[in-house]
Parts: sequence; structure tokens; C-alpha cells
Amino acid sequence: MDIEVNDAFGACEKPVAAVVERTPRVPLHVALYEPEIAENTGAIGRTCVAAGAKLWLIRPLGFRLDDRRRKRAGLDYWEHLDLEVVDDFERFASAVGLGRLWLFSTKGTRLYTDVGYCAGDALVFGPESRGLPDAVLARMPERVVRIPMRPEARSLNLSSAAAVGIYECLRQLRRGESAAGH
Amino acid sequence: MDIEVNDAFGACEKPVAAVVERTPRVPLHVALYEPEIAENTGAIGRTCVAAGAKLWLIRPLGFRLDDRRRKRAGLDYWEHLDLEVVDDFERFASAVGLGRLWLFSTKGTRLYTDVGYCAGDALVFGPESRGLPDAVLARMPERVVRIPMRPEARSLNLSSAAAVGIYECLRQLRRGESAAGH
Repeated sequence: MDIEVNDAFGACEKPVAAVVERTPRVPLHVALYEPEIAENTGAIGRTCVAAGAKLWLIRPLGFRLDDRRRKRAGLDYWEHLDLEVVDDFERFASAVGLGRLWLFSTKGTRLYTDVGYCAGDALVFGPESRGLPDAVLARMPERVVRIPMRPEARSLNLSSAAAVGIYECLRQLRRGESAAGH
Repeated sequence: MDIEVNDAFGACEKPVAAVVERTPRVPLHVALYEPEIAENTGAIGRTCVAAGAKLWLIRPLGFRLDDRRRKRAGLDYWEHLDLEVVDDFERFASAVGLGRLWLFSTKGTRLYTDVGYCAGDALVFGPESRGLPDAVLARMPERVVRIPMRPEARSLNLSSAAAVGIYECLRQLRRGESAAGH
């Protein structure tokens, strides 16, 4: 599978509007790689419902999906969530397309605001305690992005980081739609 | 006190760089109005450390600051947090400046990405269960902004919403600095 790299906003393979029309319910994918904390997955599910994004969970999970903490954080939004749980990264990547992925990592050198997101892209976040593994990052270093932060903070809470990434992506997609006259 | 309205990016009263130099540790304020849930305040404190923002908590709080859930969500970042707890909204507003405030509310008509943030501005978020009171919103309707979301979701988790607002503000401030040649 070829890896497409969208280096600048507007460099998407297809016009945003066309892609949104083609996949009206999934302009965006969010994937949690081996998430560990039930509350974070609940909150991210809620953000995905708000954003109209599909959530993928890549096993193993550090909790059961019926965990009451997942439920409390996801409130009653969970029933509206487009959710798919897969056994491993390969299944997720081949379903969405490797060239669609953006890997969020504190090890990234490019800022998450300096890349151009396209409708249909997938934002991938690693486990809370250790982030995405080097072996995954090394497969597509040009798709690794980071959220800037001061040195006193090693990382953001996972659900905060996901919200930041998801809404930057939506901001860009809205801007693309508005530039296209929609 | 006059209320300044920054309608477009770049309309800040003072150049961003000058303001950042004058208040190097506080380019941004975040205020939680009567927050109810300890974990959210902990996670938002962590985001504020990452962003270099000062966190204001406006009483009454729905938890004790030494609550273990606040601590767990704030991890060991809390000690780095520039934190001020005040008794009421007036004390906060007069310290920061009414014209500096941006009120995040699902009742806002302007998108949070359509306003221009300046260094020294303050992002204000209401309590988890009820949002900012109408009496506060009505005092400065032109400063009320909302994060867009699909109708299936009534709101985001408070710590997710705060992260989205904070990082959009930082994105704009970075862009301003880079435009000024910094």
C-alpha cells in the first residue's frame, strides 16, 4: 500500500467536500492503541460523538468496555458512538489505509498544527503510560506529529491530547469546506 | 473598565511578542467557574502546566484541592502549576481584566476558532453540570464562544473542552509570534 503524505493544507488527494459527501458520517477516524484507562476511553468516545468521528480501539485494552468508569466518563453518548474494536494495529491500518494515519507522539518533530489533515484521515494515540511504540513510529516517521508543551509537563492527559488533535483536524476541515464555498 | 473586543486575529491591543515578554510566564489565563469534579480540575491543571497557562479556580469548588482524584489526574505536574483560587467571579475578572475574558459556552453563537486571542487573554469555563450562568454570559455576549459539536452530543467533557480552547489559543499566539519574526 502506498503511503500518501499531505505536507501542506490543501494537498489532500481529493477535495474535502467530495470526501465528506462520500463518507458523510466518518470524516475522521480516531484510534487508541492499547488504551489502559477506562475513563480516558469514555471521554474520548464522547469527544468522537461530538466531532462525528469513528473510534477504533486496538487490543489489548487495559479495561473491560462495560467498566463503570468507562460508562461514567462516556455518559449516555456512548450509544451514539461509531465504534470498532480490532485485534491488532495491522487490522486497523489496513481498514483505514496506512497513508491516512497521523501518529501522535511526544517524540514527533513536526507540530500537529503544521500538517494538513484530510477528511478520512485517522489520528492515532498510544497507551497512557508509554505512548506509541517505536516500531510503529519508525514505519512512517513523516506522519508522526506532536502537541507542543513546556518542559515541565512530559505529556497531556490522553483524553485532552485526543481532543486537541481532533478539534485541530476539524478546524482545518471546516476551513477547507468554507474555502470550497460550502 | 472598558471591554476590548478583538474581532479578528491580529487585532490585539499590543503586539503578542511584547506582551509575552512583559508577562513571560503567563501568556494565557484559564479559569474554572465553580468546578464540580476533582478529576477534571486535575487534568486541566496538567494541561495548563503544558501550555504555560495560569489556572484560576473560582469558588465554591465541588471538591477539596487535596482530593486524591484531583491529585491522581494532576499527577506530579500540579507542583509546577501557577494556581490562584478566588472567592468569586468579580475578583477574578478585576484581576485579569473584563476585556480579556472569553466565555466558553454551548450557548455561544461565535465559534471559538473565529475570534482572535491575544497573549494575556483568559479562557473561562463553567461548571460541568450547568455551564456558565446566563447572568455572566449576558454581561459580554460578544465574548461568548462555543466549540462546535454534533447534535448527538450536548457537550464535551470539561477537561477536553478546556484543552481544545487552550491549544487553539496557543496555535494563534504561535502564529502571531512567527509572523512577527520570532
